[in-house]
Amino acid sequence: MTEVAAARRSRFTAERAAELYAAVRELLGEVGYDGLTMDAVAARTRTSKATLYRQWGGKVELVVEAMRHTKATSAVDLDTGSLRGDLDALLAHDNESSMEETSSLMRGLAMAMHHHPDLRRVFIERIVEPESEEFRRIMRRAVDRGEIRADNPALDHVLHMMVGAIVARGLLENLPPTREFLRGYVDAVLLPVLAA
Amino acid sequence: MTEVAAARRSRFTAERAAELYAAVRELLGEVGYDGLTMDAVAARTRTSKATLYRQWGGKVELVVEAMRHTKATSAVDLDTGSLRGDLDALLAHDNESSMEETSSLMRGLAMAMHHHPDLRRVFIERIVEPESEEFRRIMRRAVDRGEIRADNPALDHVLHMMVGAIVARGLLENLPPTREFLRGYVDAVLLPVLAA
Repeated sequence: MTEVAAARRSRFTAERAAELYAAVRELLGEVGYDGLTMDAVAARTRTSKATLYRQWGGKVELVVEAMRHTKATSAVDLDTGSLRGDLDALLAHDNESSMEETSSLMRGLAMAMHHHPDLRRVFIERIVEPESEEFRRIMRRAVDRGEIRADNPALDHVLHMMVGAIVARGLLENLPPTREFLRGYVDAVLLPVLAA
Repeated sequence: MTEVAAARRSRFTAERAAELYAAVRELLGEVGYDGLTMDAVAARTRTSKATLYRQWGGKVELVVEAMRHTKATSAVDLDTGSLRGDLDALLAHDNESSMEETSSLMRGLAMAMHHHPDLRRVFIERIVEPESEEFRRIMRRAVDRGEIRADNPALDHVLHMMVGAIVARGLLENLPPTREFLRGYVDAVLLPVLAA
């Protein structure tokens, strides 16, 4: 977040912003990205459109912020001392119900990105890049501890493996990527290939 | 394909059907699944709507068949004698340009499935299941040859790993899953974790 944006946003309390983000996600689930209007957000949240534009700049930013705030807790750099512990802590951020909701909304957004390059750009910048950076920090620590060889080519594919499993689970099996499923995947795929 | 469906379809030559499937994919790329109508397919392919319905049954079946026929060659059971060779042969089925087109159309369809359970059902039955079966045959032979341990838990995740990498490549990097990318992924991830 830029400092200007942070200053603008400080007019909303964290609780009020969280309520507003929840309402945006609710609307997204009902009408999809293309169907979502700032008018509808304003009406549902009893906020003026002018305020919404002043605080977030536009629909793209508001939607991406709403998706960034699906996690139960904010992303903190949890250093548990082991690769398995760190990955487990990362998964523990999401509770089951928000993970199901998020995965369904993300699929809708992924489709919308196809037709809206501005949405893709902000999504990559505000959600994908920070998540990638979190994974990179976890991997760097594991390399430093000697758990992963620095030249393991699978290091370039950690996000493909994780995001892929989440998307494929929904796509192929119509099942949400529960924490249990992701733990199984980490144990069966991610840890063995990184330790190789 | 059921025998009844095969008999119905025999009215079209393979060349004519291929042309028609290409036109359906072209339309899909232009207007998306929701925008595609049987009227538009009939007009573009100079076929009567009655003929389309008689041959394919409806939009869902026609679209799924069009997607099933994106491969340069039909899926044959290539037994090359090694896991790496088999996976490479599987990837060689797709040529680069059709893979880019397919990956983009598949993303659109994946999203449409979200709202159309009938599309999901036919897609799973006609495309996902046969592809899964092909992967299972390849894995079974590798287990028989002693390349993979029969109790390797990663065997349950082969499709998650492969489909995931393809989808994540487009979603995160906006890049098509080229053959070169997929070969790198197979070498860095799939083969090491299956050999573990």
